[in-house]
Amino acid sequence: MTLKTSWVESANAADHPFPLNNLPYGVFSTDALEPRCGVAIGDMILDMSRAEEEGLVQLTEHPLFDVPFWNEVMEEGPAVWAALRERLTALLAEGAEARDRVEPLLVPMAEAELHLPCVVSEFTDFYAGRHHATNVGTMFRGAENALPPNWLHIPIGYNGRASSVVVSGTDIRRPWGQLKSPDHDKPAFLPCRRFDLELEMGAIVGTQSDGPITVDEADAHIFGYVLLNDWSARDIQAWEYQPLGPFQAKATATSISPWIVTKAALEPFRVSTPEREFELLDHLKDTGPMLYDIDLSVTLAPEGKAATVIARTNYREMYYSSAQQLAHHSTSGCPMNAGDLLGSGTISGAEKHERGSLLELSWGGKEPITLETGETRTFLEDGDTLGLHGAAQGDGYSIGFGDCLGKVLPALNDPYAR
Amino acid sequence: MTLKTSWVESANAADHPFPLNNLPYGVFSTDALEPRCGVAIGDMILDMSRAEEEGLVQLTEHPLFDVPFWNEVMEEGPAVWAALRERLTALLAEGAEARDRVEPLLVPMAEAELHLPCVVSEFTDFYAGRHHATNVGTMFRGAENALPPNWLHIPIGYNGRASSVVVSGTDIRRPWGQLKSPDHDKPAFLPCRRFDLELEMGAIVGTQSDGPITVDEADAHIFGYVLLNDWSARDIQAWEYQPLGPFQAKATATSISPWIVTKAALEPFRVSTPEREFELLDHLKDTGPMLYDIDLSVTLAPEGKAATVIARTNYREMYYSSAQQLAHHSTSGCPMNAGDLLGSGTISGAEKHERGSLLELSWGGKEPITLETGETRTFLEDGDTLGLHGAAQGDGYSIGFGDCLGKVLPALNDPYAR
Repeated sequence: MTLKTSWVESANAADHPFPLNNLPYGVFSTDALEPRCGVAIGDMILDMSRAEEEGLVQLTEHPLFDVPFWNEVMEEGPAVWAALRERLTALLAEGAEARDRVEPLLVPMAEAELHLPCVVSEFTDFYAGRHHATNVGTMFRGAENALPPNWLHIPIGYNGRASSVVVSGTDIRRPWGQLKSPDHDKPAFLPCRRFDLELEMGAIVGTQSDGPITVDEADAHIFGYVLLNDWSARDIQAWEYQPLGPFQAKATATSISPWIVTKAALEPFRVSTPEREFELLDHLKDTGPMLYDIDLSVTLAPEGKAATVIARTNYREMYYSSAQQLAHHSTSGCPMNAGDLLGSGTISGAEKHERGSLLELSWGGKEPITLETGETRTFLEDGDTLGLHGAAQGDGYSIGFGDCLGKVLPALNDPYAR
Repeated sequence: MTLKTSWVESANAADHPFPLNNLPYGVFSTDALEPRCGVAIGDMILDMSRAEEEGLVQLTEHPLFDVPFWNEVMEEGPAVWAALRERLTALLAEGAEARDRVEPLLVPMAEAELHLPCVVSEFTDFYAGRHHATNVGTMFRGAENALPPNWLHIPIGYNGRASSVVVSGTDIRRPWGQLKSPDHDKPAFLPCRRFDLELEMGAIVGTQSDGPITVDEADAHIFGYVLLNDWSARDIQAWEYQPLGPFQAKATATSISPWIVTKAALEPFRVSTPEREFELLDHLKDTGPMLYDIDLSVTLAPEGKAATVIARTNYREMYYSSAQQLAHHSTSGCPMNAGDLLGSGTISGAEKHERGSLLELSWGGKEPITLETGETRTFLEDGDTLGLHGAAQGDGYSIGFGDCLGKVLPALNDPYAR
């Protein structure tokens, strides 16, 4: 696959995140326009609400784009998703007949504010990166018991809190919580001291299911992918997580990148999961390449200073694909819906600089990392802006995700002041 | 407080669950009527959609009852909740002037189908019954380590799956799942063999919050209560729950009773939490009686046979109130919304016959219980109908919840058959 050229010139620039090959879906507003569906093309956004009004895009008898979320498109299913992509490609390709009618519907991205691209129905977070699980397990339980006995047989996950999912650019307030230092007898209610990121991909479920689905079916149900930062309060987590898992440690916020990159755009970048140590049970077996070769990086910029890349890795490092996670999620009969968000789990590679959390990068706070500014970090400090970045590299083009940014604000002085 | 009499005669019968003192909120339909909001009074349901159309109930400038869920009423907040209750009491009290206009809007409950009373925004399940946690902990970790170190300091909870919440009367399909017998090397994908109930109360959050709230504020945010059965696949749970908590074991279904009993109706029945072994941190401290004296029972009826009461207990057995749970839920800044459902955790008393799960009643399957039919049970069998029942006993009246019923259907032959 090579670059498809567009009459939107900026989309043809080398390494632009949003060439015609990409066409990711988001929700935007401007001073003049209420939040609405849009498609990124180069430095512009195509206003889908107006495109539909103008009759340029008409896929169903009822309107799909008069709402500020993509859930209604998702619910239409794969045939409509394919027809939409085909239509958008035709409208925006070099030499398109409709250019004169489409051009007035383009809004400069620089003038737009981006919102959550969909209503997040429910949020599930997995723990499916082997290097991450091994690192964390080694720190907490020793190298010999690093992976729990179930880990190589089942994509371990837990339900997160959908109401806490925010779009890139939203400031993140350092939380308070109940925590207990090992050197104290009793817990205390304090601002989190070990506030961390988790570099993840998020898969967005597009179509509804009501019973067990196969891995192939699960793959077909997925609409697209975003970058996801699962902000984590490690000290709160350490005290609360036994026996029922993380709860308030993960409920402050989860940031996602603003553009849903479709499965169709990522199709050329499919790769297989790694070799299995144990054969998976039949219903979880790999049936084809369902991970993607997506380069990922994490940047940390102290307040008013330049950003340092603190980690580089790739989505192909995961042990389980999102399709396998969704198939597992459905085994109990759990109803899955359009807009369900599945976090991949923290993505870490084998090397130290490939670790997707500060917990791992600083080895539990014992080995501070040094930024290019000369400062050091074990966990996040107030004013730090954390960024996740991702792109799949094609032949002369890339499929970008748009950054997933969040700045850490200081904890409230007194969370119960009224 | 004594019985308030209504011109709806059936509501005045001794021990009727729905006297004028109660006025619980549900959603119903009939052959002729689409699903809509209704209020239970005796054996009848007041059609709130028509009452609003007729101008009998008008609390806001915009309509509240033209939708089949109570979330819009909830979002209006406590002043509107109080005004609604006052208005309904006036319309339905003995001697009410409006009787002639109200009577045609009553629908016999026997002709109605009941639906979920609200859109469940998100579902959180707690683990806040001390007897239950001690029983389960003793079985799994021994009597000396029964309660985890955090348990007496924090209401332990985890996020559940809102999409799996169903109304009483919905059949429950025995799930398949990955599980591992202690006597096997490897896990297998099998139908659940240890399918169980959990007797709980559910608190329904009525108003939105975006940051830490106090216990008093949390109490004010709660709209009402339902009975809740958190169906649990114990064998799936045992294999999957380390380290991130229960997931597919709890995702098949959670049943709730169809009527939201308001906080106002339960007001005369407030009781305090038990004495504390450790003083709670300030933000979780009891500030008044926030549990309720509600008698609870569990019945089990094998297919085609009479029901046996297998447990009797009381909601006042809980160690933490729903208000304390909601306050804790908000500490991280987690946004809470109208329609959020908080399961209390399994309610067990100190005595054997007061245990709210078969796991406890049969002590992990080792001590089968005997039903009045002569049959025995360790866990649920196909065809069993499980019922939760609850009522607060006033002076000559009761506040009932309506039963929370569910029948166990056999597992699918092959969940991946297409």
